Parts: sequence; C-alpha cells; structure tokens
Amino acid sequence: MRIALVAPSCTLKREAAGAVQEIVAARGDCELIIHPQCFLSDGHFAGPDEARLGALLEVMADPSIEAIWFARGGYGSNRIAETALKELPAAARTKIYVGYSDAGFLMAGFYKAGLEVAWGPMAQDVVRSGGEAAVNRALDWIVRRDPLAVEAALDGPAMAFNLTVLSNLLGTSLEPDFTAVDLLIEDVGEHLYRIDRSMFHVTRSAAVQKVRRIRLGRVTDILPNDPEFLRDEVTIVEQWCARSGIPFGGRADIGHDVLNKVVPFTTEKG
Amino acid sequence: MRIALVAPSCTLKREAAGAVQEIVAARGDCELIIHPQCFLSDGHFAGPDEARLGALLEVMADPSIEAIWFARGGYGSNRIAETALKELPAAARTKIYVGYSDAGFLMAGFYKAGLEVAWGPMAQDVVRSGGEAAVNRALDWIVRRDPLAVEAALDGPAMAFNLTVLSNLLGTSLEPDFTAVDLLIEDVGEHLYRIDRSMFHVTRSAAVQKVRRIRLGRVTDILPNDPEFLRDEVTIVEQWCARSGIPFGGRADIGHDVLNKVVPFTTEKG
Repeated sequence: MRIALVAPSCTLKREAAGAVQEIVAARGDCELIIHPQCFLSDGHFAGPDEARLGALLEVMADPSIEAIWFARGGYGSNRIAETALKELPAAARTKIYVGYSDAGFLMAGFYKAGLEVAWGPMAQDVVRSGGEAAVNRALDWIVRRDPLAVEAALDGPAMAFNLTVLSNLLGTSLEPDFTAVDLLIEDVGEHLYRIDRSMFHVTRSAAVQKVRRIRLGRVTDILPNDPEFLRDEVTIVEQWCARSGIPFGGRADIGHDVLNKVVPFTTEKG
Repeated sequence: MRIALVAPSCTLKREAAGAVQEIVAARGDCELIIHPQCFLSDGHFAGPDEARLGALLEVMADPSIEAIWFARGGYGSNRIAETALKELPAAARTKIYVGYSDAGFLMAGFYKAGLEVAWGPMAQDVVRSGGEAAVNRALDWIVRRDPLAVEAALDGPAMAFNLTVLSNLLGTSLEPDFTAVDLLIEDVGEHLYRIDRSMFHVTRSAAVQKVRRIRLGRVTDILPNDPEFLRDEVTIVEQWCARSGIPFGGRADIGHDVLNKVVPFTTEKG
C-alpha cells in the first residue's frame, strides 16, 4: 500500500521522518512517500498556504496513493481546508485520510464531503517516548484496518475532535453533521477555564446537541489556573452535557499521547 | 444616578473597590452600590454560579438602579447569561449595562433581548497605571452620555467584543444579529496563532459575514509564538476579512488598557 505524508499544519521534524521510515521498512507491508513539503517552513507553518495546499491537492489527485497521512498537527490546516474542498480531485474519493489535533479542520470538511476519514496517531508522534507503538497503531489501521487499533468502546457512529479545534470549526463550512454520533473529544495545553469556555461553546451549539453522546478523552498538559479552577475536566464536561441535555458517555481512549487510538468517522448512513 | 456594581465573572479586588468609591465621591454626580457578591470567591469565579446569578438578577430587578456596571472580566459570565435572560426582571429593561471582555457574553445576550448595552471600562481597570481616567470615562458615559467617552470613529451601528469571547458565543443562544454593524474587536494575552484561528472561526461564520465591516482594536500582551508567526495582528485580520468578503475598516480605539473607549451597541433600528 502506498501512503503519502503531507503537512497541512506545522513542519515535520527530520528525525521523525527518519524514524517513521525505519518503522515502515521493518514492517514491509507499505510504502511511505514523504512529500518534501513536510519540511518547508514559513513562520508557524510547514510552508506558505499555497505550498501546503499544493502538496495536499497533489497527493489527493494521485491515483496510486491509497492513504493520506497527516504528518503532524500544530496549527494551520484550516487555512487551506476550504480551498482543498473546492478543488477536490476525483481521485481524492478513493483514499483514507488519517490524523488528529489541528488536522481536525480538514477531517471535518473532508468527511462532510463524503471522504473516508479516521482520527489516529500521526508521524510526528514517533518522537514521543514509546511513540513507535502509536505509529504502528496508525499504520496497522491504515494498511489492514486492524480492529485492535480502534478505540475499544466504539459501538456506533462516531467522530473525534480536539475540543478547541471543534469549537473553532462550528458554524464554518467545515462543520459536519453530528446527528446521532458519539462525539469523542480531548485537549492538550489549555487552562481549565478555557476547557470550560470551549465546552460552553460546543454544547450550546444546536448542531452539537444532535449527538448521541459526548465521551471525554484525555486532557493533558493542563496549564496552571490562577486562581485554582476547583473543578476537573470530567466535572466540567459532565456539567455542560447535563445543562445541554447531552448524555455524557464517560471516558474515551484518545489523547495527545502514545496511547491515542483510531476513531474511524462514521454516521448513521455508514 | 444610582449605579450597581456586580461581578458575573471574577472577584473584584478590595483595593479597586475602594479606589473607585473615592473617584465616585470626588465626582459627586452618582452613587455606586457595590454588591457584596463582588468580593465572593469560588475558585476561578466571584462566587458560585448561583451567587453571581442571584446578585445580577437582584440589581436587574431593582427599579432604583439606573445602570449596572460589571466589576471586571476574567471568565464566567457565560455560565449565568442564559438563565439571567430566561428570568429577566421587568425592571431590567430600564437600565444600561456597561462592561467589556468576558462580560461580552452577557452583553451579547442582553442586547439581543432588547436591553441597552455599552462596551466600556470596568471598575477593576482602576488598578492599571492611569486607570482613574478609564473609570471616569465609563462614569462620564453612564451618568451623562458624554460623547467624548465614545470611540471617536463610530459613524453608524456598532458592537464591540473581545475576539476570543466573540468566537465562543457564535452559534449559542447569546449570538446577536450582526447585520450592517461595525464590529469592533480586540484581544489580550493570546498567541498570534490563536488570533489567526479565532479570526478564521469568526469571519467564516455566516452570521458575522453580515457585518458592515470589522475594525481592529488593540491586541496586547501577545504571548510568544514558537516559531515566530511572521504576520502581525493587522495582517491577520486584513487577510481573513479579505478571504470572507468583509470590509476591513482599520483600527479602533478599544483594548484591555486605560485608553479603552465606550462603544454603545446599536443596530440599524437604533
């Protein structure tokens, strides 16, 4: 299987690319084509919008590519998502798209457009301690749809998003139909007051209130709140779910870490 | 004129309350009733939701109060805004409501409900260097609608919001009608990548695309971007306005500082 790596958000580290290619070589069940755009740099981004968009459209249009794997998150995929959708190549519909975090902007819009999308570890995760397992988990799913890679408690239509990314795509053209899905959320590097504010925004949205339930992944690297927030992330999510009549489905096995599992996006139609 | 001070978000500092009462005494043109709720503390908030909501509804229902001045921002007014609107006392309609920053959640919903609302300095601003001028500016407008207190370039219907607060109220029941208004925005304490992300979210909203134009106040205490973002806040706002067909109206004289001016919320109907 030929898998293409592009970076719609931030620059992939060279050492991450090398380590992932070693894993791929050892597996022997796939070929990873790392687009040179992954190493571009333009301030915050892996190259200017035009370069990131160009690389993405190029691999989307390539019929020999079966999967597009996002190299890493950070910030920036929202800046090219709408144009990528407007110029969607025909061959884009025969691929699977895998990533998480900031890639959620693209994944939301792509799923809405009928493409096959899954939340899962990214190449840059290899630099985390124990990251090889995360990378293999993503590849196990991309190459052979290994059920062991998938979040274990999924039992119906589901989507997964970083909470802050989800909040920032609501009401835009990228917003998918949340009807009857289990909405899995997680976050990283935020203050608890921001988690609370994002949960207000997300749960008070009529679009989100159509979900079957919300499940909470890990919230890691929480920034110190001054003064103490006094409520943890589970209490926050439970309270906003209760206020909005959304069932809280408990914890989910996703997060910005090496244990992060795969969540294939599905709705009632399939 | 009797003005009530309540704190729907974070706790007012005792020294700020004292300093503002001295200013009020020296002016001699108004009476400031500082609700004891302003000094409550419950973790992040100026008391539990029930206490902040109770104090707010109490002064809203008091026919002897002509103005409600929000003590300070921070975070938390969104947690009580929807209930305050549901239980809106009749006497609430004969008052003016003044504040900014996190108070924007309340101000948006109150303005939508037909109440008179204005963006302007808050009591806690007195602790800033030169803060007495900011407090007097707010009081000049509350007491005698002093036109010198108002943002000088206003020339039609207008609203003002903290960008991050605005982003977090879009799509909720608090979202007002932005049709044909000058939308003034500002922010504080954010990374430039977050400003860019919020501008994506705000300008890609169909509701916001109804504005006459967007004007940019000051963006202060910007947190270091790693790597450098390479685009400043003016470029960011200009670019997102251009992408969304929203005219950019240049700079606005508002911000989290002592120069912050008053922006009475108005729409085409007045």
